[in-house]
Amino acid sequence: MTTLSVFLDVPLAQKLEGSLLKTYKQDSCPKKIFLAFRVCQTSKGQPWVSSVVPKMRLQIAQDPSLNYEYLPVNGMRSFTEASLKLLFGKHNQVIVENRVGGVHTVGDNGAFQLGAQFLKIWRKDSQTVFIMSSKKEPYGLVFQDMGFTVREYSFWDSKQLCMDANVLLKQAPHDSIFVIGNICDCNLTQSQWATLMASLKNKRIFLFFDISSQGLSTGDLEKDTGFLQYFVSQGFEFFCSQSLSKTFGIYDEGVGILVVVALNNELLLCVLSQLMKLTQALWLNPPITGARIITSILCNPALQEEWKQSLKGLVENIMLIKEKVKEKLRLLGTPGSWDHITDQNGSHSYLGLNIQQVEYLVRKKHIYLPKNSRINFTCINAHNIDYITQSINEAVLSTKGLD
Amino acid sequence: MTTLSVFLDVPLAQKLEGSLLKTYKQDSCPKKIFLAFRVCQTSKGQPWVSSVVPKMRLQIAQDPSLNYEYLPVNGMRSFTEASLKLLFGKHNQVIVENRVGGVHTVGDNGAFQLGAQFLKIWRKDSQTVFIMSSKKEPYGLVFQDMGFTVREYSFWDSKQLCMDANVLLKQAPHDSIFVIGNICDCNLTQSQWATLMASLKNKRIFLFFDISSQGLSTGDLEKDTGFLQYFVSQGFEFFCSQSLSKTFGIYDEGVGILVVVALNNELLLCVLSQLMKLTQALWLNPPITGARIITSILCNPALQEEWKQSLKGLVENIMLIKEKVKEKLRLLGTPGSWDHITDQNGSHSYLGLNIQQVEYLVRKKHIYLPKNSRINFTCINAHNIDYITQSINEAVLSTKGLD
Repeated sequence: MTTLSVFLDVPLAQKLEGSLLKTYKQDSCPKKIFLAFRVCQTSKGQPWVSSVVPKMRLQIAQDPSLNYEYLPVNGMRSFTEASLKLLFGKHNQVIVENRVGGVHTVGDNGAFQLGAQFLKIWRKDSQTVFIMSSKKEPYGLVFQDMGFTVREYSFWDSKQLCMDANVLLKQAPHDSIFVIGNICDCNLTQSQWATLMASLKNKRIFLFFDISSQGLSTGDLEKDTGFLQYFVSQGFEFFCSQSLSKTFGIYDEGVGILVVVALNNELLLCVLSQLMKLTQALWLNPPITGARIITSILCNPALQEEWKQSLKGLVENIMLIKEKVKEKLRLLGTPGSWDHITDQNGSHSYLGLNIQQVEYLVRKKHIYLPKNSRINFTCINAHNIDYITQSINEAVLSTKGLD
Repeated sequence: MTTLSVFLDVPLAQKLEGSLLKTYKQDSCPKKIFLAFRVCQTSKGQPWVSSVVPKMRLQIAQDPSLNYEYLPVNGMRSFTEASLKLLFGKHNQVIVENRVGGVHTVGDNGAFQLGAQFLKIWRKDSQTVFIMSSKKEPYGLVFQDMGFTVREYSFWDSKQLCMDANVLLKQAPHDSIFVIGNICDCNLTQSQWATLMASLKNKRIFLFFDISSQGLSTGDLEKDTGFLQYFVSQGFEFFCSQSLSKTFGIYDEGVGILVVVALNNELLLCVLSQLMKLTQALWLNPPITGARIITSILCNPALQEEWKQSLKGLVENIMLIKEKVKEKLRLLGTPGSWDHITDQNGSHSYLGLNIQQVEYLVRKKHIYLPKNSRINFTCINAHNIDYITQSINEAVLSTKGLD
């Protein structure tokens, strides 16, 4: 066939994600361990699922009253409402004043895709986006593809081994966009908060929060997102990607909400109407299963309580693992203080190792973790904790004095 | 509060879709009928669902062996494979030669969103898109938002009351993109096909097929998409949006595939790799439920057979409704030939009324249908067929001589 291909100029795209996981999978060593799974693992190394979810899946499948019609473009309204109440608390100022709203989004990136499209059109002056380094790969790509300049930042101070929100003040130019994850881990004082807020306002920085694991930090749903209320009370307008897949264990049904907080209801309706237009072009009608499971649980007090308890159990287990790791390192006499392990909240925290130590673990011990040593602590269990802590000890000893 | 809103310049977006449905809903007349639902209706006016689907939903919810982990970026591989086999037939040339592939997409617009993004980047010369008028609203918006010039066309010849594929030849400028639905309804002769193909090649027109109801035209899955094989055999490269929600009755789980046919495997892999990159930014991991239900049915011969039979039953019912409408109009002595009703395949077909007649039905009879008189015949049932046919008769008589 002599026809020239239409696709002649299309090169093979570079793979962006999963190189660490790929190397892990190709490793034939039986001792190999992967410490960077995105989702929480059970003690048996399976993805964690809230006990209430399988029950709800069954109940939904057996319900003859459900209809399987298309959802409207803005998605499942009861899902959006229940999720916003979860995020802000039922009686929050923005809910009472009717100036918070949300659009049902698809997948882990959906809310960022939608929000970025909006910002590209309606905030032409904001073309630089700062993204926390741990999320640069999935979210950065979204903004990059649309022509934004993407820079990364980290709250983690690898010298002081603690979180530091001052990076926000130092790095951000005027009119930039900031994608912010769990800022409550930074433990700011009242006056530090005030300085931060003033600086953000002064620089006209647009905040795009990323709440993908509400409740997984402290085990307390309200406490985890309390800082959002503070921003609301200070008159900030912002976007927030609220993802609920991780906290229910419905990873296969990536579902979320692009939350919009505006100064008043009129502005909110304008923003939502533009978002709806974009959603229509993106996927028209979002799939329902994830939203249906979550809504059924959130709207039933008994099931909601069961879910909260399962989440609490997960967080207690994370704390226990961290305590054990710290204790084992202490018993091994590993140089350094390991308090930073238990000082950090949530499933994903920094081990506080340097690059040489990480390399040592990967190459000599077949323990796979990212270069910044931010690991998923739920990947550590009774079967592998001794091997992991002994290996960390070896890594630290072998690289002593190399800094 | 004196702060100026970030969203100050954002106007309220115009609503694009559903104005007919909205007017219908606001109509308080008890006789009102809506003839333009997107999905097939049962004789009781409920959305049609294949009998095999509820069973499969239950089976999936009860299966303890399933894992709920994230799907990879390219989606569920077994779903893509099973769907491609359905589209092309197991032993088709493109499958054997390994030059067809697909990406699991989300919602009814997902495949067009993904395909349009690709074409925007990799076919910079193709900036005009022709879309069949019945699908202009959902798909046109996708291309329009990305800066393409969108024009509409229709195979329906409202004078001759038949389908005419020659519009493709007349209207299309060089290097344009054509979104094509069910071309097999045009009943082209071998020589007309040959002329059409030569002209498309000569004008370097890129084809983007829309297969959203395979099997619903003739009741025969292979026959409905046979024309795709003809394009393949003639050395065409193309995209195809394959949507399976309508043919299974899983409207709430909008799921599909962006199908790519390339001249060889190497080209295919390049295109798929670029699509994967775009998918990552769009939704990262697609939701699984719709794909899981469909794959479980397609990969089980007994269930597949049950699904095919349910589809056949649906198509037979559509034909029966059309026959009845034609017969009732004949008995009423309605002027004109109504053969075009039964000459057209599928649930959605043209009634062949002019604008005055449509207006008459909407305003005087509370029967809601689009201006081009393309209706969903499954909205007609034993309860409303007499009222509908009598009203059509009145409409035709009352506007006689107005043309």
